[in-house]
Amino acid sequence: MKKILLKSALLPAQDGARVVDILIAGNRFARIGIVSPEESAGAEVVDCSRFAVFPAFYNGHTHAAMSLLRGYADDMPLQKWLQEYIWPFEAKLTGGDIELACRLAFLEMIKSGTVFFADMYWHRERTIKIVEEMGIRAAVGVTFAESLMTAEQIEGNFKFLAAHTGESDRVSLAVAPHSVYTVGEKMLKRCADFARVENFFVHTHLSETVKELEDCEKQYGCSPVRLLERTGMLDSKLAAAHCVHFSDDDMKAFVDSGATAVLNPCSNLKLASGIPPIDRLLNAKAKVALGTDGDSSNNNLDMHEEMKLAALLAKVQGGAEMLPAYDALKMATVNAARAYGLADVGEIREGYLADCLLVDLKNERMVPSHNLVSNWVYAADSSCIDSVICNGKFVMRGRHVDGEEEIVRDAEACAKRLASAT
Amino acid sequence: MKKILLKSALLPAQDGARVVDILIAGNRFARIGIVSPEESAGAEVVDCSRFAVFPAFYNGHTHAAMSLLRGYADDMPLQKWLQEYIWPFEAKLTGGDIELACRLAFLEMIKSGTVFFADMYWHRERTIKIVEEMGIRAAVGVTFAESLMTAEQIEGNFKFLAAHTGESDRVSLAVAPHSVYTVGEKMLKRCADFARVENFFVHTHLSETVKELEDCEKQYGCSPVRLLERTGMLDSKLAAAHCVHFSDDDMKAFVDSGATAVLNPCSNLKLASGIPPIDRLLNAKAKVALGTDGDSSNNNLDMHEEMKLAALLAKVQGGAEMLPAYDALKMATVNAARAYGLADVGEIREGYLADCLLVDLKNERMVPSHNLVSNWVYAADSSCIDSVICNGKFVMRGRHVDGEEEIVRDAEACAKRLASAT
Repeated sequence: MKKILLKSALLPAQDGARVVDILIAGNRFARIGIVSPEESAGAEVVDCSRFAVFPAFYNGHTHAAMSLLRGYADDMPLQKWLQEYIWPFEAKLTGGDIELACRLAFLEMIKSGTVFFADMYWHRERTIKIVEEMGIRAAVGVTFAESLMTAEQIEGNFKFLAAHTGESDRVSLAVAPHSVYTVGEKMLKRCADFARVENFFVHTHLSETVKELEDCEKQYGCSPVRLLERTGMLDSKLAAAHCVHFSDDDMKAFVDSGATAVLNPCSNLKLASGIPPIDRLLNAKAKVALGTDGDSSNNNLDMHEEMKLAALLAKVQGGAEMLPAYDALKMATVNAARAYGLADVGEIREGYLADCLLVDLKNERMVPSHNLVSNWVYAADSSCIDSVICNGKFVMRGRHVDGEEEIVRDAEACAKRLASAT
Repeated sequence: MKKILLKSALLPAQDGARVVDILIAGNRFARIGIVSPEESAGAEVVDCSRFAVFPAFYNGHTHAAMSLLRGYADDMPLQKWLQEYIWPFEAKLTGGDIELACRLAFLEMIKSGTVFFADMYWHRERTIKIVEEMGIRAAVGVTFAESLMTAEQIEGNFKFLAAHTGESDRVSLAVAPHSVYTVGEKMLKRCADFARVENFFVHTHLSETVKELEDCEKQYGCSPVRLLERTGMLDSKLAAAHCVHFSDDDMKAFVDSGATAVLNPCSNLKLASGIPPIDRLLNAKAKVALGTDGDSSNNNLDMHEEMKLAALLAKVQGGAEMLPAYDALKMATVNAARAYGLADVGEIREGYLADCLLVDLKNERMVPSHNLVSNWVYAADSSCIDSVICNGKFVMRGRHVDGEEEIVRDAEACAKRLASAT
C-alpha cells in the first residue's frame, strides 16, 4: 500500500495549532501525531515544516461544464443573460466539449483547493469520466428539467440512476430535479419517491429569486419550500442550493426537515438575486454548506472566496461575532461533504479519507501567525495553497497540476470555436 | 535612460482588447501600439505574449503598519476589539517594528498588484523610508487624533507638513484628521484651513458606524458630513474613507462638494459596520474609489477582493447591471490615484507614469477569453499576477519580490515578540 508521510506539519484546531506528522496509507489518514518508524516504513516523506495542513474544500453546488461560458455574458438581468447568451451557447455543446469544459473546471477547482463538487448539468457520463481521470471526487447530479427534456430522456435518467446505485470510489450520483419552476409537482414527487426507495441524495435549486417565489405562489399556492415538503422531497437527504428567500415559515419547515442549505453568495450577489439570510439560517440552527454555482455566474469556482464572503455577510447581518473563522471553514469543507452523504471525509482525522491542502506558512498573507485559522479564512487566497491531496494522492504539487498547459490551451480553442459559431 | 519594451502584450479596453508593444522609458509609458526600432534601441525586451497588461491597483485607504496585527483579534464587537486587543498591542510598537510592519504590508500589496496606498498611521518617517526602499507610491497621512496626542505632537504635525510641501518622486503627504470623533470641530477647521493654504489633500474616516452618527448628532447637532462641511473640509481635495451611513441630505452635500468616497467593503462587513451604499453613491454620481482598510480588520490588503466585492454589492443593491466590470476596475485603480491628486497615473496611456501589472492569460481563471476585463474583475485572484511594474521598474517579477523571505521571517519574529509581551 502506498504511504506518504507529511513530516512536521502545522495542524490547525479551534483552540490553536500543533506540529504533527501525518501518515497517509493508501487513501486514508492512518496516523496523526507521532508516527513510529515501523508504521511509516517505505513511505514517501514530504517535509511539511513550512506548511499548515487544512481540510480541502467541498463545493456543494456547481455546474462544472459551464466553465467554457466564463465571461461570455455579465452585468445584465437574469432573463436576458439566460435567453440571449447562455442557452444559445449551451445548445452547441457536444459531449467532447463537455469533457474539455470539465477538465478546465476541475483544474480550476484543484488549484483553488477543492477536491469535491456536487454537479448539476448534462452529459453526466462525460463529467464522471473526467472526474475519474483527474483524481477528484463528485456527487454528479442526474438532472431533471421537464421543460427542457423529452419523456424518453426523463425515463433514461431513472434507468441510469437505477443501474448505478453501486457507487464508485470517488463518484456518487444524486437525483437532481432542477427546480420547482422546471419540474412539475408530479415529477418532483416521483423524484422524491425514487430517491427514497433507491437511497439517493437529492440536489436541487431552491428559493433563489423573488420571481421563483411569486410564480410558485401563483401556480401552487405555496412557497417552494412548502411545495418540496408536499412532494416528500424536503428531508435530511436534500441539498438545496441558494435558499436566498425564506419566510419564517419556510425556515422552520426547512430546519425541521434536516435538509442542507447550500449557499452561493457570490452568484446570488452578482445576479442580484439577493443576499442569502446566513444569520437567520445559523440562528435557526440550519445545516449550511457552501457552493460556487457555475463559472458563468460567479465567475470562478473558488470556494475560498465563498467562505470569506459568507463570513463577511453573516457578520454584517448579525454582528461581528457571527460565523467565526472556524465555523466558516467547516461550512466550506465538511458540511458539503455531509450534505451528500460522504461520512468519513472533510476533516483531518485518523481513519478518514485523505483529502487535504498544504498551505504555505511563509506566504505573506499567512504572516504573522497569531491565529492560523483566521489567516486562512480572512487573509489567504489560492496563491497560499502549495499542494492538494485527494484520496491519498497529490493532485497538485508545488502549484503544478499535471497537464494544465494542455487543458488551458484546449479549453481556450474550444470556447473560441463555440463563440464564433454563435 | 533605462527602457523596457513589453512585447506583444494584450491591452484591455472597454470594448475589447488589442495586442500592442509598450515602450517604457525611464518612469513613463513612452509609446503604446507600434514601437519603432529606433525608439526601443537599448531596451530590455520582455516577451509578453502570454500576458495582459492591466493598470495596477491604487489603495485609497489603509493603515499599512497594522500588518503585524493580522489575525490578532477577530470575530468580536468593535469596542472590545479596539480596547482589549488592538490598542494595547499598538502601544508597544516601536519605530523599528513599524519598519518591519511596513515591509510586510508592502510585500503583500505588491504581490496582489497594488503600487500605491493612502496611509493613516503613526511613525510617518518610518513608513516613508520603507516606501522609498521598496519602490512603490504612497500618500502618507500625517495623522491628527486629539484624543490620543499631546499639544506638542499636534504642532509637530503641522511643522512636519509645512516642511514637506515639496513632494518626492513617489511619496506625497496628506493631512489626515482621523475622524469627527477623535478630532474636535476647531481642530478640524484648522486642518481644513491648513490644507487649503498649503495645498494638501485631506484623508479622514467618515460615517463608518451608526455610533459615529449618533454621537456626532448628540455633540454637534448634525451629521459627520455636515460637520465636515461646517469646518470647510468637505471639498474636492477630501478623500473620505468608509461612507457607510449617508442620509439623502449627506449624499447631496457630499456629491456637490466633489469629495471622493473611499469604500472599504471587506472591512465594513467584517466589523459589522454596514454595507456601503454603492448603488446610491453611483446613482448620485459621487466620486468613488476603493481601499482595503488595515490588515487587522480585513484581514488582507488585496484590492482585487475589494474590487470584486464592490461590484457584487452594487449589483445586489441596484441590479445586475450596476457597476459593470470596467467601472469596477476604474474604481480600484485610477479613481484612488485621482482622489489624492496623482494626475498622470492609473491608466496605461502614453505619457503616464509607468505602473502596470502583467496578468497571466494562461492561468485557468483567465480562460476562456470571451471577455478579458470580466475575467480579471470577476474570476481572477492574485495568483494570476505574474509581474508588477511601478514607476518604470519591476517590483515583482515572475511572482518574486526581492527580499521577501527575509521580510516574512523578520515580521513573524517581531509579531511573536510583541504578542508574547502583551
